This record gives sequence, structure tokens and C-alpha cells, in this order.
Amino acid sequence: MDVGFIGLGLMGRPMALNLIKAGHTVHVWSRRRASMQPLLEAGAGDCASAAEVARRAPVTISMVADAPDVEQVTLGADGIADGAAAGHIHIDMSTIAPAAAQSIAARLAARGVTALDAPVSGGEGGAIGGTLTIMIGGDAAAFERVRPLFEAMGQSVTRIGEAGAGQVAKACNQIITGVGVASVAEALNFAHKSGVDATKVREALLGGFAWSRILENHGQRMLDRNFKPGFKAWMHQKDLRIVMDEAHRLGLALPSAAATAQMFNAMVGCGLGEDDSIAMLKLLERMSGGAGE
Amino acid sequence: MDVGFIGLGLMGRPMALNLIKAGHTVHVWSRRRASMQPLLEAGAGDCASAAEVARRAPVTISMVADAPDVEQVTLGADGIADGAAAGHIHIDMSTIAPAAAQSIAARLAARGVTALDAPVSGGEGGAIGGTLTIMIGGDAAAFERVRPLFEAMGQSVTRIGEAGAGQVAKACNQIITGVGVASVAEALNFAHKSGVDATKVREALLGGFAWSRILENHGQRMLDRNFKPGFKAWMHQKDLRIVMDEAHRLGLALPSAAATAQMFNAMVGCGLGEDDSIAMLKLLERMSGGAGE
Repeated sequence: MDVGFIGLGLMGRPMALNLIKAGHTVHVWSRRRASMQPLLEAGAGDCASAAEVARRAPVTISMVADAPDVEQVTLGADGIADGAAAGHIHIDMSTIAPAAAQSIAARLAARGVTALDAPVSGGEGGAIGGTLTIMIGGDAAAFERVRPLFEAMGQSVTRIGEAGAGQVAKACNQIITGVGVASVAEALNFAHKSGVDATKVREALLGGFAWSRILENHGQRMLDRNFKPGFKAWMHQKDLRIVMDEAHRLGLALPSAAATAQMFNAMVGCGLGEDDSIAMLKLLERMSGGAGE
Repeated sequence: MDVGFIGLGLMGRPMALNLIKAGHTVHVWSRRRASMQPLLEAGAGDCASAAEVARRAPVTISMVADAPDVEQVTLGADGIADGAAAGHIHIDMSTIAPAAAQSIAARLAARGVTALDAPVSGGEGGAIGGTLTIMIGGDAAAFERVRPLFEAMGQSVTRIGEAGAGQVAKACNQIITGVGVASVAEALNFAHKSGVDATKVREALLGGFAWSRILENHGQRMLDRNFKPGFKAWMHQKDLRIVMDEAHRLGLALPSAAATAQMFNAMVGCGLGEDDSIAMLKLLERMSGGAGE
């Protein structure tokens, strides 16, 4: 299938490469030409604008930083909507607010483009390995048409509901994973400060109801003091800002997510933003008198 | 092995029955004679005091509500220490503060009794099924001597370290499971209030890093609105009070656990204390304008 890809960063690049590996013909454009190079070398088509990408392919994907970037590449000058033929499907895989995704979908629909929101979970490792969790909102028929593209990039592909529903699921994911990282970091720091071997505590807890992927993988990385991202703390901070904004809009209290969002704010304030989100442990160590290095 | 058992409530009764099933000779005493009946019918020996239990068996177990109860049955009048012969091992499986466990262990040691703290996780289901997670603190040789007793009651049996270390591990467990329940309840309520099918969200999230036993089991029970305990909210409230007291003593911040402890306080205030801890969802529903029934 001909497919356009815009946004070739840490996540987008390996995702686009997996589309090529799966036999799709990928067309790329980027504001920074250097970021296109690995894709062009892998055989991707070279485009001069987002509009050109949309002219060359009936389906386009964007993987960018935030809602204004998605608006720019889809609805801005020389954007997707400018190049799209009737029946074009645009898939935004960035993490943005559910309300923003709905608004963009409505404006794209007015210009003949069917939008899907399809944010992902799994980090750079999942993007490289093609094992992402993909949560999709939007038209069911459009979803079925592009399902092979999702399956080339992800292991778990679920259509959650209508426009914005993918972003709602992603927000839920970021609540559970962010709060999960905080609780595991709090528990391991508590064990250590109590003079108890945190490695043994993690082992014992994996045998019971505390079992989680966060405790198993991230807990081990905390014990190994491997804070290399993975998923950067400032990105989790951004995602929880989206969650808390949405909670404000809905009149909805999220006490544990709110406490965790504050800790991500503190991480960025303490210069830990470029570390993996599990450097939450360093913040807690500093807050309890340790060096937190 | 002859073993005494004191504290035959929701948890203690099935644990003692599993010891009998495994071929051990169990001797029981309880302040409330009625609670002894099922054990006597199953063949347990009938004792008139905790001291008598200790006279009849070289190993005793207590499973009671809180630290003052443990002190009473071990160090009080007609308690374990009064009846224990040299080399007696006492195992307290209640959930109490690590500092209290250490203090009781030191006072028992002065009277010739070796104490192990061995709190459990897994709830009534785990107690009945013999699948508890048991976290042990105290002397390594004493632990090895009584290991068969633990293996008759639990699936995952781990000696964490010296006296109090089992209670530290249990505190860590209650942080991760309590905060886990809060985050899953917040996420599912967020999905529902956003107009999205929370069932689909849970399914999608189980495919990724958000996977946890809490999301899988408790998440499903929240969707089924099955709030039958299980593990009562007031008990989780009590366990997080122990955790927060200990954090205060250590000068240790636990932001996500603190937010969650407040929610358990609110659950008890709202009359949800006798529900399962997953009735956290009802509290969040009420806090966002729903009926929360």
C-alpha cells in the first residue's frame, strides 16, 4: 500500500522503517531534511511538502510532538488536506488531547479527509521491534482499510471507538503507567531507606497482586540504576498535562495522577527531564536526603 | 509438626485449616470461642489460653488485627511468652508497623522466643487456596525450620531480611497495590466520563506496559461492579496509615501513596469501608457527579 509518513523522530523513524519492511511503499517529508535521510536510504519516496505526501498516497500518517504540530501538517499551508484526494485517510499517531483530536478530525472531514487518532504505547523499543500497543479512534471502515499498516508497527491493535477515543485510551494508559512508575519508585525507596534489600522486596512482590510490567521491567531498571530513556520524563510530564487539562475540562478528580503529575513537574525542575521516567526514583532519593545520582 | 494458631478470623481460619490439611497438628485458642469451632471440628486441639497453645507446640502463629493485639497475645498475661519452652519460634502473620515488629521481636528474644514477622498478601481467596504471598523477616535458621508451615499456606514464600523486613515488604506491597487500585479506578472513570467504552480501554491497555494484576483482575471486577470483598477498604486504609506513619518517622515523601491514603480515608468517610478496596471507583464516580452506587 502507498502510505505517507510525516514526523521521523525517535518513534516515527523506526515505525516508518517497519512499514517498508512489511512491503509498503512509504513517502516521506520532514521540516528537517536530515531526519528523512535514513528513510530515503531505505527506499522511501522523497516529497517536498506534506501536501505532496498526500498527493502520492491515499493514506498518510503523522507522528509529531503535540496538537499544534498535527494541525500544521494536516490543515496548515501545503498540508495533508491541500494534497488529499477524495477518500483520503489520515492517521495521527501523536499523543494529543482527545478534544484536539476530535476538533482536527471534524475539520479534516469538512475537507474530505477521514481522520483516525491512533496513539501508541511501548516507547522506542516497541517502535523498533514493531511491538507497539496502538489505540485507535475513528471510523470503523477506515480502520479496517488501514489495519495492515497498524499490524506492521504494533502487536496489540485495538479500535476503541469514535474520533478521540484512541487519545482517551492513551490518556488512561499514561495515568496507569505514570502512577505505576511513581508507586514502584516510592516502594523501592521506602524499602531501601528502611534498611531492607529492595531487590528481595521486588522479587517477593512479583509473586502476588503487586505484579505489573512496571514492577517487573522498570523496577529492575531502577535497581540497576539504568535511567537511559526509553521514555523521557518530560514526555510523560507532557502526557499528564494533557490528562490533567482534560480532567479539568470534564470536572473530574484524579488524585493519584495529580500527585504523579506534580512529581514529573519536579523531575523537569530538577534537571531530570531528559532521563527516563523511572528517574522518578532519583527525585524521591533527593527528597529523602540522598544524592539521587 | 505441632503448631499453635491464634487469630481465627477471615484470614486465619482458612490458613489454619490449610496447616491441618498439610498434615500438621494444630492447637488453637481464641478470645471468641465461636471462632474456634470450625477448627475444633477439623481436629484442632482446644486450648484455654495463648500460653497453653505455646506449651503444647514449639511453634506458634498469630494472625490478628494490629500491633496491640500482637503484643497482648505474645507478651501479655497468659501469652505466648508465658508458655513457651526454650527455642520456641513465634510467627506473627498480621500486618503491623515494621518498628512495632522489631520491638516485639526484641522483647520476645529477651524471653527466649525467636520471632519471625511474616505478613501475607493475596486476601481471603489466597488464604483459602493456599496461594498467599508471604514476606518474612527474622532469623534465617528459624525461617528454614518453619518453612514447611509457610509452604502449606502460601505459594510465594520469601525471606526478605532481619526482624521487621517482612513488614517493610508488606508496606511496599500495600503502596503498590493501593496506588494501583487508585490509578486503575481513575483511568476507568476517566474513560467512562469521556464517553468511551471502559471495557475496550482495559482490553487495549492489557496489551502494553500498563499490564498489571490489578488492571486484569480488579479492573474487570470494577467493570462488573463486583465490590464484594476480597480485601476491605478499611483494611487498606489501616495498612496505608502504617505506611504513612513509617514514612513520617523516616522523613520520606510518598506522594502517590499519600494521595491514595486520603482516598481510602474518604471511602471510609463515605460509608464504603466495608466494600472491597476497588470501590475506590464508586468514590471517584461520586466525586465527578455520578451516583457511585
